[in-house]
Amino acid sequence: MNIRYAVIGTGALGGYYGGKLARVGKDVHFLFRSDFEYVRENGLQVDSVNGDFWLKEINAYRKSEDMPFSDVILVCLKTTTNHLLPELLKPLLHAGSIVIMLQNGLGVEEDLSARMPELSIAGGLAFICSNKIGPGHIQHLDLGKLILGSYKDCEPEILKMVVNDFLEAGIPSEMAPDLNLARWQKLAWNIPFSGMTVVLNNDTEQLMTNESTRILCREIILEVIAAANACGASLSELLADKMIDMTRMMKPYAPSMKLDFDFRRPMEIEYIYSKPIQIAREAGFEMKKVAMLEKQLLFIQESW
Amino acid sequence: MNIRYAVIGTGALGGYYGGKLARVGKDVHFLFRSDFEYVRENGLQVDSVNGDFWLKEINAYRKSEDMPFSDVILVCLKTTTNHLLPELLKPLLHAGSIVIMLQNGLGVEEDLSARMPELSIAGGLAFICSNKIGPGHIQHLDLGKLILGSYKDCEPEILKMVVNDFLEAGIPSEMAPDLNLARWQKLAWNIPFSGMTVVLNNDTEQLMTNESTRILCREIILEVIAAANACGASLSELLADKMIDMTRMMKPYAPSMKLDFDFRRPMEIEYIYSKPIQIAREAGFEMKKVAMLEKQLLFIQESW
Repeated sequence: MNIRYAVIGTGALGGYYGGKLARVGKDVHFLFRSDFEYVRENGLQVDSVNGDFWLKEINAYRKSEDMPFSDVILVCLKTTTNHLLPELLKPLLHAGSIVIMLQNGLGVEEDLSARMPELSIAGGLAFICSNKIGPGHIQHLDLGKLILGSYKDCEPEILKMVVNDFLEAGIPSEMAPDLNLARWQKLAWNIPFSGMTVVLNNDTEQLMTNESTRILCREIILEVIAAANACGASLSELLADKMIDMTRMMKPYAPSMKLDFDFRRPMEIEYIYSKPIQIAREAGFEMKKVAMLEKQLLFIQESW
Repeated sequence: MNIRYAVIGTGALGGYYGGKLARVGKDVHFLFRSDFEYVRENGLQVDSVNGDFWLKEINAYRKSEDMPFSDVILVCLKTTTNHLLPELLKPLLHAGSIVIMLQNGLGVEEDLSARMPELSIAGGLAFICSNKIGPGHIQHLDLGKLILGSYKDCEPEILKMVVNDFLEAGIPSEMAPDLNLARWQKLAWNIPFSGMTVVLNNDTEQLMTNESTRILCREIILEVIAAANACGASLSELLADKMIDMTRMMKPYAPSMKLDFDFRRPMEIEYIYSKPIQIAREAGFEMKKVAMLEKQLLFIQESW
């Protein structure tokens, strides 16, 4: 079986992963918004540390109603537009379709499932540094690994085929034994560094050079780890020092939320902060520092 | 007995309170730094909501070695220069001198007493909005009440005389039955609003208009109240709502730490944050939110 892919949201993530799949001949259909006309004329350009490529002609669409039924739908939108998903997804679905939420944070699959109870849903975590730097123009700076896991009613065989397609396209990719665990693990980095780079308007290097913020980031990671454990995701406290050490070694980096802040775009506060706080609270754990960061971020967001 | 006053640090606070005392004929001697020459030539100007006044000739000094022995020494420096105090105070002291620390925060008397064990020390809290707006030029915008309390070896009679002198000078003034309680009560406002206006670069009105920060400020006040109670200062939780309501009614206000931030001057993090955190910790209470604010402030301070 050849999988037909739909990419919902062709930006830094969708443009890169979808572009890589299309480049090796997979059947990929891309939904665009503002870049549609440009890409129809000029194709999709990906500048990647692993080699640049240009897709002169791709299956580009302006509306999902114009797209074909798809087997695997990669949701690469920012979570701030997730309220649009039912409307965007419906025209693409057949009985065997699965939707893979390639998004940050916690609770994205749960919320979609509540609104579309019939849907087969998986989740994916992208460990990648990439940006959209112009119309139909993606810049891939570093990393790229994808981790996929079933959330509800996904045939493991299909997800394995997706993993194989990604591998074939040159994307390190694997199945997550536990999607919940994988999401919490990513949050353990994203929660301190997204919020702190925004609130203190800096980058990871500055946070790691200063002793006060290095200690605080470590404390926040430990708080997320404690919340994860309360939520059944078994994360070791050793992860805190590993993440701090890794971040100290990294080139200075601005998480995507910091870029959203810099360009005054909506920040993904709901799924990176509010939902994890709420889910941990329901499990009996109060993330006090994370809740403080959330409120500071909400203030900033609402001040624009 | 006529009290001879020395004012150490003639800025927004020392210029106003010392100026008011001098204006009604009290024997006041002022230590200046950069403004010395200007004030020698031009005197001290106080623009006050309660009436402007100009002191053409005042007892101005450049060094405390040139000043006379004094009965009551009003320390009106910012706490960031407290390491200079022993040197500044020694030339002024006679056997009966008392030093009144008119400073924000917690632990200022304790630290001074540790370095000068023979000293008679009192503390004072100024509830005032005033600024130095030019050389020898003080602007008094609002309020002005002074609360004084003994810390160590102060004759209550002398403090009462000081209170009477202030009252005579038109300054609402009273004795604090419990200096520790008064300091914690002031911190319950200063800790949330100093730090949050700096970290989020705003003013009290913006913090109170936004729901997230209004909730967070209230939570921080409650945390300070809990710490105060752990430290033997009996503060009611009802104070939190009272302070929030009061701040909502206030004109938009930038605490002195926010002005220090705006002008890239050292902020009083040590005595408004670090010391209270440490003192509460020794009493078995961890101020988690306050400690997070402290670390954010230290980052900002150390980034200049």
